[in-house]
Amino acid sequence: MKPRHHVFVCTNRRSADTQMPSCAANGGGDVLEAFLRERAARGLYRTVYVTQSLCLGVCPPSGATVVVYPEGTWYVGVRASDVAEIFAAHLVDGLPVARLRDPRYV
Amino acid sequence: MKPRHHVFVCTNRRSADTQMPSCAANGGGDVLEAFLRERAARGLYRTVYVTQSLCLGVCPPSGATVVVYPEGTWYVGVRASDVAEIFAAHLVDGLPVARLRDPRYV
Repeated sequence: MKPRHHVFVCTNRRSADTQMPSCAANGGGDVLEAFLRERAARGLYRTVYVTQSLCLGVCPPSGATVVVYPEGTWYVGVRASDVAEIFAAHLVDGLPVARLRDPRYV
Repeated sequence: MKPRHHVFVCTNRRSADTQMPSCAANGGGDVLEAFLRERAARGLYRTVYVTQSLCLGVCPPSGATVVVYPEGTWYVGVRASDVAEIFAAHLVDGLPVARLRDPRYV
Protein backbone atom coordinates (compact mmCIF):
# COMPACT_ATOMS: atom_id res chain seq x y z
CA MET A 1 0.00 0.00 0.00
CA LYS A 2 1.34 3.42 -0.86
CA PRO A 3 2.11 5.70 2.08
CA ARG A 4 -0.14 8.69 2.62
CA HIS A 5 2.92 10.92 2.84
CA HIS A 6 6.54 10.32 1.88
CA VAL A 7 8.95 12.76 3.49
CA PHE A 8 12.43 13.26 2.03
CA VAL A 9 14.94 15.09 4.23
CA CYS A 10 18.13 16.44 2.70
CA THR A 11 21.27 15.67 4.66
CA ASN A 12 23.73 16.47 1.89
CA ARG A 13 27.26 17.19 3.02
CA ARG A 14 29.60 19.50 1.13
CA SER A 15 33.32 19.83 1.55
CA ALA A 16 34.30 22.51 4.03
CA ASP A 17 36.06 24.60 1.37
CA THR A 18 32.93 25.37 -0.63
CA GLN A 19 31.05 28.63 -0.10
CA MET A 20 27.66 26.94 -0.53
CA PRO A 21 25.46 26.04 2.41
CA SER A 22 24.68 22.38 2.89
CA CYS A 23 21.83 20.68 4.69
CA ALA A 24 24.24 18.51 6.69
CA ALA A 25 25.93 21.60 8.11
CA ASN A 26 22.49 23.18 8.62
CA GLY A 27 21.19 20.44 10.89
CA GLY A 28 19.61 18.12 8.30
CA GLY A 29 20.59 15.09 10.37
CA ASP A 30 18.72 16.47 13.38
CA VAL A 31 15.70 17.20 11.19
CA LEU A 32 15.72 13.62 9.94
CA GLU A 33 15.96 12.29 13.49
CA ALA A 34 13.08 14.52 14.57
CA PHE A 35 10.83 13.14 11.81
CA LEU A 36 11.76 9.58 12.78
CA ARG A 37 11.04 10.31 16.46
CA GLU A 38 7.65 11.90 15.70
CA ARG A 39 6.67 8.99 13.52
CA ALA A 40 7.71 6.47 16.16
CA ALA A 41 5.79 8.34 18.85
CA ARG A 42 2.66 8.19 16.69
CA GLY A 43 3.25 4.68 15.32
CA LEU A 44 2.63 5.87 11.76
CA TYR A 45 5.13 3.58 10.05
CA ARG A 46 2.76 2.50 7.31
CA THR A 47 1.24 5.83 6.39
CA VAL A 48 4.28 8.13 6.69
CA TYR A 49 7.54 7.13 5.04
CA VAL A 50 10.68 9.08 5.94
CA THR A 51 13.73 8.86 3.68
CA GLN A 52 17.13 10.46 3.99
CA SER A 53 18.20 12.07 0.71
CA LEU A 54 21.19 13.76 -0.77
CA CYS A 55 20.98 17.16 -2.50
CA LEU A 56 17.43 18.19 -3.42
CA GLY A 57 18.72 21.19 -5.38
CA VAL A 58 17.43 23.80 -2.95
CA CYS A 59 20.18 24.90 -0.56
CA PRO A 60 18.90 27.37 2.04
CA PRO A 61 21.37 29.54 4.01
CA SER A 62 20.11 28.00 7.26
CA GLY A 63 18.05 24.93 8.07
CA ALA A 64 17.44 21.98 5.79
CA THR A 65 15.28 21.24 2.76
CA VAL A 66 12.37 18.81 3.05
CA VAL A 67 9.95 17.71 0.34
CA VAL A 68 6.73 15.82 0.98
CA TYR A 69 5.07 13.72 -1.71
CA PRO A 70 2.69 12.97 -3.34
CA GLU A 71 1.49 16.51 -2.71
CA GLY A 72 4.84 18.04 -3.66
CA THR A 73 5.20 20.42 -0.72
CA TRP A 74 8.68 21.92 -0.49
CA TYR A 75 9.90 23.24 2.84
CA VAL A 76 13.12 25.21 3.20
CA GLY A 77 15.13 26.31 6.21
CA VAL A 78 13.63 23.57 8.37
CA ARG A 79 15.05 23.10 11.85
CA ALA A 80 14.49 20.16 14.14
CA SER A 81 12.31 22.42 16.30
CA ASP A 82 9.90 22.86 13.34
CA VAL A 83 9.27 19.16 12.83
CA ALA A 84 6.59 18.60 15.47
CA GLU A 85 4.52 21.35 13.84
CA ILE A 86 5.00 19.94 10.32
CA PHE A 87 4.07 16.50 11.55
CA ALA A 88 0.93 17.53 13.40
CA ALA A 89 -0.38 20.15 10.96
CA HIS A 90 0.61 18.65 7.64
CA LEU A 91 1.18 14.91 7.98
CA VAL A 92 -1.70 14.30 10.40
CA ASP A 93 -4.15 17.13 9.72
CA GLY A 94 -3.31 17.73 6.04
CA LEU A 95 -2.55 21.44 6.37
CA PRO A 96 0.97 22.36 5.20
CA VAL A 97 2.89 24.86 7.35
CA ALA A 98 2.80 28.01 5.23
CA ARG A 99 5.65 29.88 6.91
CA LEU A 100 8.18 27.19 5.97
CA ARG A 101 7.14 26.58 2.38
CA ASP A 102 9.41 27.46 -0.50
CA PRO A 103 7.43 30.14 -2.40
CA ARG A 104 8.87 28.91 -5.70
CA TYR A 105 7.04 25.62 -5.26
CA VAL A 106 3.63 26.78 -4.00
CA MET B 1 7.88 25.57 -10.62
CA LYS B 2 7.36 22.02 -9.50
CA PRO B 3 9.01 19.32 -11.61
CA ARG B 4 6.77 17.08 -13.67
CA HIS B 5 8.54 14.04 -12.27
CA HIS B 6 10.86 13.65 -9.29
CA VAL B 7 12.92 10.45 -9.42
CA PHE B 8 14.52 9.11 -6.24
CA VAL B 9 17.16 6.42 -6.70
CA CYS B 10 18.26 4.33 -3.73
CA THR B 11 22.01 3.96 -3.37
CA ASN B 12 21.98 2.75 0.22
CA ARG B 13 25.10 0.90 1.34
CA ARG B 14 25.05 -1.79 4.01
CA SER B 15 28.00 -3.22 5.85
CA ALA B 16 29.40 -6.31 4.19
CA ASP B 17 28.53 -8.53 7.16
CA THR B 18 24.77 -8.15 6.80
CA GLN B 19 22.71 -10.75 4.96
CA MET B 20 20.41 -8.12 3.46
CA PRO B 21 20.77 -6.92 -0.11
CA SER B 22 21.55 -3.25 -0.59
CA CYS B 23 20.97 -0.98 -3.55
CA ALA B 24 24.60 0.18 -3.51
CA ALA B 25 25.81 -3.40 -3.95
CA ASN B 26 23.06 -3.93 -6.56
CA GLY B 27 24.23 -1.15 -8.87
CA GLY B 28 22.19 1.74 -7.50
CA GLY B 29 25.03 4.14 -8.27
CA ASP B 30 25.01 3.08 -11.92
CA VAL B 31 21.23 3.49 -12.04
CA LEU B 32 21.56 7.01 -10.66
CA GLU B 33 24.22 7.86 -13.23
CA ALA B 34 22.05 6.47 -16.02
CA PHE B 35 19.13 8.73 -15.00
CA LEU B 36 21.45 11.74 -14.89
CA ARG B 37 22.85 10.91 -18.31
CA GLU B 38 19.40 10.45 -19.87
CA ARG B 39 18.24 13.72 -18.39
CA ALA B 40 21.32 15.54 -19.66
CA ALA B 41 20.91 14.06 -23.13
CA ARG B 42 17.33 15.33 -23.23
CA GLY B 43 18.01 18.63 -21.44
CA LEU B 44 15.08 18.05 -19.07
CA TYR B 45 16.61 19.67 -16.01
CA ARG B 46 13.53 21.66 -15.09
CA THR B 47 10.88 19.03 -15.59
CA VAL B 48 12.65 15.93 -14.27
CA TYR B 49 14.42 16.07 -10.91
CA VAL B 50 16.74 13.21 -9.99
CA THR B 51 17.75 12.73 -6.35
CA GLN B 52 20.03 10.19 -4.74
CA SER B 53 18.43 8.68 -1.67
CA LEU B 54 19.29 6.34 1.12
CA CYS B 55 17.12 3.34 2.04
CA LEU B 56 13.60 3.48 0.60
CA GLY B 57 12.55 0.45 2.63
CA VAL B 58 12.24 -1.89 -0.35
CA CYS B 59 15.39 -3.99 -0.73
CA PRO B 60 15.25 -6.22 -3.83
CA PRO B 61 17.63 -9.18 -4.16
CA SER B 62 19.05 -7.69 -7.35
CA GLY B 63 18.88 -4.26 -8.92
CA ALA B 64 17.94 -1.04 -7.17
CA THR B 65 14.75 0.61 -5.94
CA VAL B 66 13.45 3.75 -7.63
CA VAL B 67 10.36 5.77 -6.79
CA VAL B 68 8.86 8.45 -9.01
CA TYR B 69 6.63 11.20 -7.63
CA PRO B 70 4.10 12.77 -7.64
CA GLU B 71 2.54 9.69 -9.22
CA GLY B 72 4.06 7.35 -6.63
CA THR B 73 5.36 4.70 -9.02
CA TRP B 74 7.67 2.23 -7.31
CA TYR B 75 10.17 0.29 -9.39
CA VAL B 76 12.22 -2.58 -7.96
CA GLY B 77 15.17 -4.50 -9.29
CA VAL B 78 16.14 -1.67 -11.63
CA ARG B 79 19.40 -1.98 -13.54
CA ALA B 80 21.20 0.75 -15.42
CA SER B 81 20.17 -0.98 -18.64
CA ASP B 82 16.48 -0.40 -17.73
CA VAL B 83 16.80 3.36 -17.34
CA ALA B 84 16.50 4.41 -20.98
CA GLU B 85 13.17 2.58 -21.16
CA ILE B 86 11.87 4.11 -17.92
CA PHE B 87 12.91 7.54 -19.12
CA ALA B 88 11.34 7.30 -22.56
CA ALA B 89 8.16 5.43 -21.63
CA HIS B 90 7.37 6.90 -18.24
CA LEU B 91 9.09 10.25 -17.81
CA VAL B 92 8.54 11.44 -21.37
CA ASP B 93 5.45 9.54 -22.56
CA GLY B 94 3.74 9.09 -19.18
CA LEU B 95 3.43 5.29 -19.37
CA PRO B 96 5.11 3.50 -16.45
CA VAL B 97 7.09 0.35 -17.28
CA ALA B 98 4.83 -2.41 -15.94
CA ARG B 99 7.42 -5.19 -15.78
CA LEU B 100 9.56 -3.28 -13.28
CA ARG B 101 6.82 -2.05 -10.96
CA ASP B 102 6.58 -3.26 -7.40
CA PRO B 103 3.19 -5.04 -7.30
CA ARG B 104 2.68 -3.95 -3.69
CA TYR B 105 2.54 -0.34 -4.80
CA VAL B 106 0.40 -0.55 -7.92
